[in-house]
Amino acid sequence: MQMSGRPVGTVQYAQGAAPVSVDPNGTYISGQVYVQYVLLANSSRLPILFLNGGTFTGAMWETTPDGRPGWQRLFLDKGYSSYLTDAVGKGRASYAPFPEIFAAPPVFRPLEETWKLLRIGPRYTPDPAARETFPGVQFPIDHFDAFARQGVPRFPGQDSVELAAYDDLLDRIGRCIVVAQSSGGYFATLLASKRPRDIAAIVTVELTAVPDTATAGMAALAAVPQLILWGDNIPTSPMWMSNKETVRRYADAVNSRGGRVDILDLPARGVAGNSHQMMMDCNNDVLADLVAAWLDDLPDMQANPR
Amino acid sequence: MQMSGRPVGTVQYAQGAAPVSVDPNGTYISGQVYVQYVLLANSSRLPILFLNGGTFTGAMWETTPDGRPGWQRLFLDKGYSSYLTDAVGKGRASYAPFPEIFAAPPVFRPLEETWKLLRIGPRYTPDPAARETFPGVQFPIDHFDAFARQGVPRFPGQDSVELAAYDDLLDRIGRCIVVAQSSGGYFATLLASKRPRDIAAIVTVELTAVPDTATAGMAALAAVPQLILWGDNIPTSPMWMSNKETVRRYADAVNSRGGRVDILDLPARGVAGNSHQMMMDCNNDVLADLVAAWLDDLPDMQANPR
Repeated sequence: MQMSGRPVGTVQYAQGAAPVSVDPNGTYISGQVYVQYVLLANSSRLPILFLNGGTFTGAMWETTPDGRPGWQRLFLDKGYSSYLTDAVGKGRASYAPFPEIFAAPPVFRPLEETWKLLRIGPRYTPDPAARETFPGVQFPIDHFDAFARQGVPRFPGQDSVELAAYDDLLDRIGRCIVVAQSSGGYFATLLASKRPRDIAAIVTVELTAVPDTATAGMAALAAVPQLILWGDNIPTSPMWMSNKETVRRYADAVNSRGGRVDILDLPARGVAGNSHQMMMDCNNDVLADLVAAWLDDLPDMQANPR
Repeated sequence: MQMSGRPVGTVQYAQGAAPVSVDPNGTYISGQVYVQYVLLANSSRLPILFLNGGTFTGAMWETTPDGRPGWQRLFLDKGYSSYLTDAVGKGRASYAPFPEIFAAPPVFRPLEETWKLLRIGPRYTPDPAARETFPGVQFPIDHFDAFARQGVPRFPGQDSVELAAYDDLLDRIGRCIVVAQSSGGYFATLLASKRPRDIAAIVTVELTAVPDTATAGMAALAAVPQLILWGDNIPTSPMWMSNKETVRRYADAVNSRGGRVDILDLPARGVAGNSHQMMMDCNNDVLADLVAAWLDDLPDMQANPR
């Protein structure tokens, strides 16, 4: 991509350093995704491609803020090779000049908002002692600030760029399982609606949007088994209530076309207290076992010989 | 950190999605560094802490753009555990609202500028066939665009924040060797001037700045053995000529106080064609061997029993 017409500026990078002239005009490469992978030497299972949520990077799957194994490690232990991504514009995937190449400036989310969106509790305060949590919440609340250090800003209007990057990635890694959270879940379902042969199954944690069932490739979506997980305390949030209802209608539509979309409502199954960031919750190993059991129940999940 | 006084905005994250209200005011955590580590189960060597250059992340040490092992892997093979960092404001370390928390907006560097700064050749063009390279340059030029995808913008004015983050990191990881490139080399020498007990040795690749020898802790700097590498084609660039001369005066000053600053001028040693990004150059294994031989020659480099 080319950028032109911006003024040449002066930047002082370091204290005491001489200001240097900076010409931002020229060629940029943008729209890349960062991929970190651990491939097991001997595995008959398909690999898992993990897609991050809107304001996080692949680091969210590696570990938990209190130092326990994340889903990446838990699924490696179950025999799944893993690809972790930093989505376009986030983490090591970087971003490009805005508004010339990226459509808009980054949006920053304060911790007050993150606390509520993740359904950790009703109120965040800088003073840890004054924070309000939901009873029995499974998020490791004493380590929330360590978790917050993983947060990244989010660039709006990059959906088609992000989807194109995942398309290229699937061309490289081949048939896989996609495990995705939040806005990552939206991309997982979009990919399934276009490439059902490359996606053996989808597991989405509280996805925030779904393809439009009036226009999406419904035969494709019906061909990809999908598990959708929902945590606890949804009724505290009109936004989450609405998302959950939208997703339920999506599941019904796909299932009415012969698909298999299974909704795992954790509190209804007796698993209480899970947050939107459940892959980091204190019972993340129990949840990984539930997901693994669902995957084990699917047919045709053997990896092709490499 | 608190941010207040910004207007509540409206953001449309995805195409077709309903615009949502976004209030950016509230609490932010900033100044963190991302650290990725591979610790060998049995090693008597001190670990290496790798610090990235100004417009890259820890990914620059992992691999080369043409898929060969990077210095991380080459030094793991030599028995060194490794810590890779994404510096404050870069990659997975993220950044905070500017100018309220971070001092200034990010600076973007077009590929034309990167090509010249890295001394790959006199001229970059979007058309690969028309690019001009220095004769015998060791950078894997056919993979420059893959390399460029690793680039990240740079936030000016964050030096003291970055230094504080490395201070915290050293508190955690203990005594180590620091290997750093470009602006990372500046931080390596600053750290040595403050914490000579924690830094057993420094290896810097073409560092861009050095502590002021009139005010820095010279006894500390004299206590830390330092190797400084310079690549080829320096005389093509007044900026690099000037940097190299500044660093030579720094080395003389530290050595006159009883220090050991060794300058390894690669072309003078018969190693031709190296770029500023030499840890990715086609002879990066030869360079790693030279660095390892220098480290092997130092006294007191055994790790403490863990």
